[in-house]
Amino acid sequence: MIKKKKKEEKIILITNDDSITAPGIKALAEAALPFGRVVVVAPDKPQSGMGHAITINAPLRLQKVDFIDGIEAYTTNGTPVDCVKLAVDKVLHRKPDICLSGINHGANHSINVIYSGTMSAAMEAAIESIPSVGFSLLDYSMNADFVASIKIATQIISQLLQRKKLDKHLLFNVNIPAVPFDKIKGIKVCKQAYAKYEEKFMERLDPHGKKYYWLTGEFVNFDKSKDTDVWALANNYVSLVPIQFDLTNYTIKKEIQNWKF
Amino acid sequence: MIKKKKKEEKIILITNDDSITAPGIKALAEAALPFGRVVVVAPDKPQSGMGHAITINAPLRLQKVDFIDGIEAYTTNGTPVDCVKLAVDKVLHRKPDICLSGINHGANHSINVIYSGTMSAAMEAAIESIPSVGFSLLDYSMNADFVASIKIATQIISQLLQRKKLDKHLLFNVNIPAVPFDKIKGIKVCKQAYAKYEEKFMERLDPHGKKYYWLTGEFVNFDKSKDTDVWALANNYVSLVPIQFDLTNYTIKKEIQNWKF
Repeated sequence: MIKKKKKEEKIILITNDDSITAPGIKALAEAALPFGRVVVVAPDKPQSGMGHAITINAPLRLQKVDFIDGIEAYTTNGTPVDCVKLAVDKVLHRKPDICLSGINHGANHSINVIYSGTMSAAMEAAIESIPSVGFSLLDYSMNADFVASIKIATQIISQLLQRKKLDKHLLFNVNIPAVPFDKIKGIKVCKQAYAKYEEKFMERLDPHGKKYYWLTGEFVNFDKSKDTDVWALANNYVSLVPIQFDLTNYTIKKEIQNWKF
Repeated sequence: MIKKKKKEEKIILITNDDSITAPGIKALAEAALPFGRVVVVAPDKPQSGMGHAITINAPLRLQKVDFIDGIEAYTTNGTPVDCVKLAVDKVLHRKPDICLSGINHGANHSINVIYSGTMSAAMEAAIESIPSVGFSLLDYSMNADFVASIKIATQIISQLLQRKKLDKHLLFNVNIPAVPFDKIKGIKVCKQAYAKYEEKFMERLDPHGKKYYWLTGEFVNFDKSKDTDVWALANNYVSLVPIQFDLTNYTIKKEIQNWKF
């Protein structure tokens, strides 16, 4: 009997880019715990903005650490993408049933999906044929309130694990507005907005009189349609964007077939 | 007269991920030089596998350096994506007409487009409304022969700059087989193959008896169609894949509209 139950138990891999110490990853692990065996492999330091970086030219470490009771957890010195690769090859020795990344402290909607370590970890899992979700809360602070986010994550994890058949490359980018649960109007399936930071570098002098530059930016939404993640979030919906890793632009592909090089 | 000529001159931004010292970026600058004012902003050290990483939590430096005669060149301590952002805001103070990234020492076809610093720099430019091309030669060595690559790059740059109107988000991923120019059968417009490294971590003990892991992998092509970049390259074509940064999976979006969360 026990054996049979074990066999059916789902394995849920959890990672993030804010590191093992971030409250967001604890919130996500709490949401996942009722659904199966939860294993955490997370960076040992914050890795925001790491995009899909991988560690090719340096060794990686893997360290078992204390986390929440009943959850096996490891840290690595690698990137969020490295975490997924290491988890599959060296911790689980198999592919988990799903991979969850986050809950990120701060938004990963619109173009930010491309810079986000949280989403890159989830994308890595999807490339590896592991259905995957990245979660982000629109609150950068380390004291962010994850109560509503845990409820939303629970709904989405439950929906995924109930389905008989999931696309093995399924990948969702979920962003949650920073409002109490009763203010959230629902989960809206959206497209990625063409909205981005318009960057300016702050220019300063160091103590030795040498210039340095620091990235800053102003968020601008160029996409005024109501079908986008930015619109959904501005209207207190949770945005859910299905993501793909085939980056081929098939429209342009058709257009340029007749170009003579 | 001179003023008018200057006004028409195209500005070509060049970057890469192998750093300013790599022969590949010199090859690309040589190919670009006949077409306009060439400005190079490249990392001061190799940044392969950096993906779309950006530097958020540290200051960036910008250093004018000697390069090829007639080409203005700078290095930064940032990532390939940082190079593009810095070039626009702090070097050119405007958007260049096109951005070229590479020529990478090593392939960036198939799923590798996602990990590639070369392609991420080009994608950053495309996001910034700068038509852009990433070039990669299928030869990892620092002594790679770029003669054929320079000819191919010249053909593509010429084609782009001749066009009256370019899609401002145009982005090409160009991979060049490591064969002499007369063996290259042509430039083939392709889709991104679902082909990837199947990773295994090498496991070793350090001098203190502690385990470390090093990423290795075997390249596997799961996509046997003849329309892919992997097929083209295996058959001595240059592969050209038009790339997009809207990652929305519209097929899945339609399928899940009726899910009840």
